Amino acid sequence: MYEPNKLVCDCCERVYDITNKRILCDCGCLLTIEIGDTDFNWSIVRGRPMEVWRYRELIPTPREASIVSMGEGGTPLIEMVRLNSVLKLRGVKVKFEGSNPTGSFKDRGLTVASTMALFFKCRAMIVASTGNTASSMSAYARRAGLKPIVIIPSSGVARGKLGQLKLYGALIVEVSGGFDEAMKAVIEYSKIGSDIYIVNSINPWRIEGQKTIAYEIIEQHGVPDWVVVPVGNGGNIYSIWKGFKEILRLGLIDKIPRMLAVQALGSSPILRAYKSGVYEPFKEPRTIASAIRIGNPVHWRRVLRVIEESRGAVVGVDDSEIIRAHKEIARLEGLGLETSSSTTLAGLKKALEDKVVDRGENAILVATGHALKEPEIIDSYDLELIKVDSVNDLISILSKL
Amino acid sequence: MYEPNKLVCDCCERVYDITNKRILCDCGCLLTIEIGDTDFNWSIVRGRPMEVWRYRELIPTPREASIVSMGEGGTPLIEMVRLNSVLKLRGVKVKFEGSNPTGSFKDRGLTVASTMALFFKCRAMIVASTGNTASSMSAYARRAGLKPIVIIPSSGVARGKLGQLKLYGALIVEVSGGFDEAMKAVIEYSKIGSDIYIVNSINPWRIEGQKTIAYEIIEQHGVPDWVVVPVGNGGNIYSIWKGFKEILRLGLIDKIPRMLAVQALGSSPILRAYKSGVYEPFKEPRTIASAIRIGNPVHWRRVLRVIEESRGAVVGVDDSEIIRAHKEIARLEGLGLETSSSTTLAGLKKALEDKVVDRGENAILVATGHALKEPEIIDSYDLELIKVDSVNDLISILSKL
Repeated sequence: MYEPNKLVCDCCERVYDITNKRILCDCGCLLTIEIGDTDFNWSIVRGRPMEVWRYRELIPTPREASIVSMGEGGTPLIEMVRLNSVLKLRGVKVKFEGSNPTGSFKDRGLTVASTMALFFKCRAMIVASTGNTASSMSAYARRAGLKPIVIIPSSGVARGKLGQLKLYGALIVEVSGGFDEAMKAVIEYSKIGSDIYIVNSINPWRIEGQKTIAYEIIEQHGVPDWVVVPVGNGGNIYSIWKGFKEILRLGLIDKIPRMLAVQALGSSPILRAYKSGVYEPFKEPRTIASAIRIGNPVHWRRVLRVIEESRGAVVGVDDSEIIRAHKEIARLEGLGLETSSSTTLAGLKKALEDKVVDRGENAILVATGHALKEPEIIDSYDLELIKVDSVNDLISILSKL
Repeated sequence: MYEPNKLVCDCCERVYDITNKRILCDCGCLLTIEIGDTDFNWSIVRGRPMEVWRYRELIPTPREASIVSMGEGGTPLIEMVRLNSVLKLRGVKVKFEGSNPTGSFKDRGLTVASTMALFFKCRAMIVASTGNTASSMSAYARRAGLKPIVIIPSSGVARGKLGQLKLYGALIVEVSGGFDEAMKAVIEYSKIGSDIYIVNSINPWRIEGQKTIAYEIIEQHGVPDWVVVPVGNGGNIYSIWKGFKEILRLGLIDKIPRMLAVQALGSSPILRAYKSGVYEPFKEPRTIASAIRIGNPVHWRRVLRVIEESRGAVVGVDDSEIIRAHKEIARLEGLGLETSSSTTLAGLKKALEDKVVDRGENAILVATGHALKEPEIIDSYDLELIKVDSVNDLISILSKL
């Protein structure tokens, strides 16, 4: 019998049609998109551009939907040259998501979510965020011809994070008092025939775009021993794992990698739950790595499941380790990453020390964003400057390097 | 008889061996790399990743050279959806170079130049620039295990442009007095067995990487009617034209596109020479588009030749047109570009008005850099902000959009 794609509740297992606009189950839980029968295989994709929609048989948007895309995905998998000898590892590679159109992996999710927003005949896309998600949403809303709306609490945000929102002309709505209630009301409102579409972390379609990171890793490398992912809300590590699982189920790989979740210690409720068995949010999460500064992750249950099922692990790294890794990966390998991304290198080091990862194993670090996303951080680093006042002095310096 | 690759002087036609480290002819002129016999054809490249080194048969680095790469190139060619109807054009596409590792097309040139630096057994790479070239050089020097050195005049530079240099730990050498003389001395010094390698605009190997933009356009689209390129020093438009010419000579295409050079009016010596026949530098070039703010372009003669041979044109646009285009391409198409890149849209509009480009023709805009390269510009744009203090007000706003 033909098995259709469907939306399934994580808790009560209620099933909805794939074209249902809702993003949460009636019971309040997250919804998962389950792929039905598909004729996907590797030979289908050969010759298609390396990008998210290369895998369209595995992204179950309705056939009638017009795809909203800017060539996202198809990011390079870059072999580490010097880090491998420093870490004494067999092979570390970096999946460089900074080369996506708005500079982060979020674009993979938003190409799919914006495609659905257009399918649902919406006029606006909405998100509560001022970070990479809001930037990506704004770009893809504009690409789809929709208005981008960003909702923020009145506690405000660092103005330095708003550049891309200004460029795209997003509407910022600042809500004073009861922000969580406001979001609930917006979610409720969006269900009943309004023409706005919510693309917060709870949106199930973003997962369907982000999971293509796994498909690309399989094509570019095969199945590694470990995949290392920065964890804030937890949506990305879950997505990547889901991607591997789908290819496994299709019989196109014979194992999935172990997933290593890395949290910043000052914002690590999932690490705490992993260690103690008890989940409790961080009220005031603190870390320089703002992209993973999340006190109460939406996907925390899913992350713990991913770790268990993949025989993975969770590690935590502090800000000084993050900054050290940030500089090391730039100065040893030439890669400019967002600080959240360099947690993967710091986390891998920790996992090696703790003998969670063995030195005979290989690992892929998912570098989720570009260094240019955080101008204030890289500008704060020291400048190595020498002044010379003659040609002779200049040549003398060059000859002594 | 077998025709080898060689270095040929643009003026006196003196020929040097391809493995000669020099970057200028003894007569002081630029050197061009001429491809000799090659077994390149499209079927060779099928199955290789879409990146600069996909075309390695056409990049004549010595066979023994170790390639220094971060997966640069393979940038998306993005179809414009709404601009086509605004401009009443048959087809405008954007080649989005912002998705290169350091955020600009410069990476294509630096992957080749750093490969040669390593081949020449250098210990440092050096450039006089604080813009995209310096950032890219620093990244690729680090990738190659070399020290990045940036030489600047004591007049100083905007500190905001130094973030990537700080991240990569480049050494900045500030030279007071006689900057041009100092550079000449460095070039002279670098010839005679020193272990530094100069990658200024005059370096012939950077051209060999940048020309791959043409190869990719042919594979992704075919030969368009027009290719539109921002022109500062002029190296990029020359490189792209050289790429098309090479494929034409191999008989793999049957025509080359017309090249449209766009200059910012406040920094447009090539436009002036194109119109008046007399070349004279701009002493104080001024434009918001700092990446093409060049008063005395290194490649001005080459650009005029490219325009003549391709039956192209040169147009100029002012800063207000650049800013308008910058916002339009973001808000109509979702693409975040550097201001220098949005000159291509402004220039295409001008060329349409002037009937240089016909509305029946198609055009590819080469967007050379990412919006995130200029945080101070996008941060200066207005923020559309509404404050609400109740859930009802919020819903009311959403329902009225």
